[in-house]
Amino acid sequence: MDTIVIIGYLAGTLTTISFVPQVLRAWKLKETRDLSLAMLILFAAGILLWTLYGIWTASLPIIAANVMTFFLLLILLGLKIRYH
Amino acid sequence: MDTIVIIGYLAGTLTTISFVPQVLRAWKLKETRDLSLAMLILFAAGILLWTLYGIWTASLPIIAANVMTFFLLLILLGLKIRYH
Repeated sequence: MDTIVIIGYLAGTLTTISFVPQVLRAWKLKETRDLSLAMLILFAAGILLWTLYGIWTASLPIIAANVMTFFLLLILLGLKIRYH
Repeated sequence: MDTIVIIGYLAGTLTTISFVPQVLRAWKLKETRDLSLAMLILFAAGILLWTLYGIWTASLPIIAANVMTFFLLLILLGLKIRYH
């Protein structure tokens, strides 16, 4: 596998798994007041477009990372709405 | 400009500006307890690698979006450390 593809996967893994401690924190604290709802909505919209960009440019690291991130964002949005 | 490049810029603009309301919220509330420090650090590390990916693949939307996001993340990390 090309070095750049590995870097892409590593980048995608980091930006994607970064949402896991955030989901766990919201879940544990049952508090999401300091999280911006506008941030979550704008970010989710951007992630959908990045997925489209990844499909169009046939970039598998971009597709994989963004699909995963989108699902974690949905969980976080659910927690934000539940514990607002 | 190609449609896909426009989609890339739009995606990058959304995921980047999404951090602006989060920075403003942290600034206004002077509270960042619900923000995960692990999330911010992992995300910033991933953003640096995405920038490298963008440089390597000569993708200007990816470079521009990630450089901007990195600076917003630095501000957010500063606020997190200040108001922890």
